Amino acid sequence: MITGKNYIGNQLSAKGLKTYKTFNPQLNIENEHVFTEATQDEIDEAVLLATIAFKEFRTISVKRTAEFLNAIADEILVLDDELIQVYCAETGLPEGRAKGERGRTVGQLRSFAELVNEGSWIEATIDTALQDRTPIPKPDVRKMMVPLGPVVVFGASNFPLAYSTAGGDTAAALAAGCPVIVKSHPMHAGTSELVASAIIKAANKTRMPEGVFSNLNSSGIDVGVQLVNHPEVKAVGFTGSIKGGRALYDLASKREEPIPVFAEMGSVNPVVILPEALKKRGESLAKTYAGSITLGSGQFCTNPGLLLGIKSESLKNFISTLSEEIVKIEPSCMLHPNIIGAYESNKANAIAQPELSVVADYDNDVQSNYGRQAITTVEGHTFLENPTLHQEVFGPYSLVVQCEDANQLEVIISKLEGQLTGTIIAENNEESNYNNVIATLRNRIGRIIFNGVPTGVEVCPSMQHGGPYPASTDSRFTAVGIHSIKRWVRPFSYQDWPNNLLPHELKNENPLEISRTINGKQTTNKI
Amino acid sequence: MITGKNYIGNQLSAKGLKTYKTFNPQLNIENEHVFTEATQDEIDEAVLLATIAFKEFRTISVKRTAEFLNAIADEILVLDDELIQVYCAETGLPEGRAKGERGRTVGQLRSFAELVNEGSWIEATIDTALQDRTPIPKPDVRKMMVPLGPVVVFGASNFPLAYSTAGGDTAAALAAGCPVIVKSHPMHAGTSELVASAIIKAANKTRMPEGVFSNLNSSGIDVGVQLVNHPEVKAVGFTGSIKGGRALYDLASKREEPIPVFAEMGSVNPVVILPEALKKRGESLAKTYAGSITLGSGQFCTNPGLLLGIKSESLKNFISTLSEEIVKIEPSCMLHPNIIGAYESNKANAIAQPELSVVADYDNDVQSNYGRQAITTVEGHTFLENPTLHQEVFGPYSLVVQCEDANQLEVIISKLEGQLTGTIIAENNEESNYNNVIATLRNRIGRIIFNGVPTGVEVCPSMQHGGPYPASTDSRFTAVGIHSIKRWVRPFSYQDWPNNLLPHELKNENPLEISRTINGKQTTNKI
Repeated sequence: MITGKNYIGNQLSAKGLKTYKTFNPQLNIENEHVFTEATQDEIDEAVLLATIAFKEFRTISVKRTAEFLNAIADEILVLDDELIQVYCAETGLPEGRAKGERGRTVGQLRSFAELVNEGSWIEATIDTALQDRTPIPKPDVRKMMVPLGPVVVFGASNFPLAYSTAGGDTAAALAAGCPVIVKSHPMHAGTSELVASAIIKAANKTRMPEGVFSNLNSSGIDVGVQLVNHPEVKAVGFTGSIKGGRALYDLASKREEPIPVFAEMGSVNPVVILPEALKKRGESLAKTYAGSITLGSGQFCTNPGLLLGIKSESLKNFISTLSEEIVKIEPSCMLHPNIIGAYESNKANAIAQPELSVVADYDNDVQSNYGRQAITTVEGHTFLENPTLHQEVFGPYSLVVQCEDANQLEVIISKLEGQLTGTIIAENNEESNYNNVIATLRNRIGRIIFNGVPTGVEVCPSMQHGGPYPASTDSRFTAVGIHSIKRWVRPFSYQDWPNNLLPHELKNENPLEISRTINGKQTTNKI
Repeated sequence: MITGKNYIGNQLSAKGLKTYKTFNPQLNIENEHVFTEATQDEIDEAVLLATIAFKEFRTISVKRTAEFLNAIADEILVLDDELIQVYCAETGLPEGRAKGERGRTVGQLRSFAELVNEGSWIEATIDTALQDRTPIPKPDVRKMMVPLGPVVVFGASNFPLAYSTAGGDTAAALAAGCPVIVKSHPMHAGTSELVASAIIKAANKTRMPEGVFSNLNSSGIDVGVQLVNHPEVKAVGFTGSIKGGRALYDLASKREEPIPVFAEMGSVNPVVILPEALKKRGESLAKTYAGSITLGSGQFCTNPGLLLGIKSESLKNFISTLSEEIVKIEPSCMLHPNIIGAYESNKANAIAQPELSVVADYDNDVQSNYGRQAITTVEGHTFLENPTLHQEVFGPYSLVVQCEDANQLEVIISKLEGQLTGTIIAENNEESNYNNVIATLRNRIGRIIFNGVPTGVEVCPSMQHGGPYPASTDSRFTAVGIHSIKRWVRPFSYQDWPNNLLPHELKNENPLEISRTINGKQTTNKI
């Protein structure tokens, strides 16, 4: 049941005066529930509870952490139709997407539960003593990962489940042993409260300390600013716009004690379509990409916003087929009037740039808040000269750049900002002739795809979701997959520490039977 | 031979007008060589060469990288007595220390050579495709670590070899595949030029691309500022003061593209001496700590600057023995008049604080630039109320805090800034009664030591050298040991990428025979 209140630890709380409602973009009306924004007192209380909870939470057994994560997954499933309905009402997304995203969220939680049980993520490393070494004896040193402390997670507008309240950031932080305070996204405060209720139930059922999780409502930026500036907050996770992510990064880096902000931000996800591929299967590629560009109304961080080809008859044909195909697709509802407002204005701004041609622009009447797809094209030199054309237009929009030759293609790629993904479309091994293009592309991105589409981010250990700035604020980490836990942990060494006081992970007898590196060798052996 | 010039790639260059000399603190005179500070043009040229070199360097085989690192170690040894003499003349440190540090530097380079050959550091992770998966096929995704790009390394004043030109930061960055530009420390520009010449020789012998390494002279902050602000520089390593490290961090985080700065900064390395230990072996502890506090004239980042005990007769006796013992030790030469100037003024400032007692203060005449040791003591409440007493006094100085009880001890520890290390001295298992103290301490530090001294940082995989801010700017990484390579790399994923175009590390046939995680299992198997 949605109350509109904040979860300050286990307590529902609404001390504030500032209220807001979420919006149903399909019906183009406000939803009924009234949410109360968290006050400074409530924020402080949530952080205090998290700080106290951390003392216990960081020391509980991996088995209990895994139980907690699995219990969250179970409780989310118990929410059943209520969750799906609120999700749809707050996003305009179809039920299938809601259910798919719920499956992904539950799957992520369970994969972190598996990870903490399996134990390799703590990177247990042991170097045993050499008493007789000269000139000085070698001490016994043992290292493992430990949690940073309370983590603040900002819900993402475009993933109300998988990258919000109990999403990837939260699951990874809890798995690491960090209490989490969620600042719920104002567009889906109801979804967030429901998921928060599931987390709190799971925490109580598995006897977690109060404060291990809180969920704060906010309609503007104040709550987020206060959280990031709080001295007891030790790290921040964010998925959203470059502007938002950079603002949080700037706040965090100006603190007396700077803290890491992992922000996964914008990307145009360049797709390079090589000449042979254009010639052989330009038509089917155009159809595939019409689908990828409009998938979820283009509201994915991996949406292909930039297609790059070398001028040819085949490229012309591709552009023309893509333009025909994309307007055949029925527009779909975008997340919120603000999102479609930004989309329409960014698209208009792009279209207004000189020497740019609009080759497709869906102009039939559509329902309110439905995103009308568009394709534009420019010449390579125009793109190079105009940085506005490099910017993301979040929505069902893509720009095709017609390059003079492979050299210009490479130069263009080298001038791109950092990206989440890059894609190479090739035929008959032609990719072997574009080593420089590919090498340059690799240096600007976090993931490279061959003959596919960038949309669809597989949740698996080998996935890198992140990339050079501004794709993310720290390219050394991923936001997707079990390795995303590394964002929230730090190495800690014990020197000559008594075996009985060591954490189980580092004890001689290896009671957890985990794999450890002992004197340079990977083993599950005891010492 | 020392020329006083910069190495811009392979070329000796001195286009600038600003010159300076290094200083011999033992003789209290300037050394003879004249160094020319790098100009903006030279800086730009070094970064340009590094950027071009990166394209080749990041793709060379691990075998060749290892050869390069080993060749650097060899060439450093070839410098022989010339290096040792210049080192001593520029630091006032004794020959034994110079040779020990050279051994450590060479050992670090060889350990990174081993690491790149062994291959586990790239964390090769492979998830193979499932074509038949519903609703959508699972792609083939393969991930490994790749280098960030050109790295700037700032030489450390107190480790002219092991944490400077070819020190830990440089060895780790080169091992990762990042070209390195060193801003040599002005106090040991000659040592840096000699080591740079060894690196350049090694690079040429092993056919590395020009620009893989440059060495820039500077007497002030300008060269460093220009380097950190250069758009093509992708990461920074620094060892030194909080003020210096924070200034670089602030610069880097204000860039259009923020870059990671790993700064290993100050620490007072709290040592908690528990009552039973004080009672049983207070005298021998006092002698041990008199040695640790004055080791290298206190010029170590792990110097024990803060000793914490609970009020008792034994603590009084400990303080009195420590005071007697420490003044028996002959003062030694500090690194530079600036360092001793800062030491004397910080010590005077500490001593001037109200309610503080000076219990030892070496007051015999000493040679110029010799650091005179001192011990002070305060009550717990005084320490809690006065943040000045929490600050590091870099040199042979330590403050003993006499706490009321275990509770006050815990409160004091909880109020400390982040530290590199913490030490617990205990006897007869008394540590079991101080779980809260130990837990609180662990949360403020990167390494905990039992019944030892914090000085002496073992170079081994399980060493964590780093800690919560301000011990370092990012506690998620270490500055010592092979895992320090993680500072300079980022994960990169290949999706459905043709096997023949994959890097060797990820190819089906596993030609490097490295250990990889394939579908969740660690194995050296082929696919």
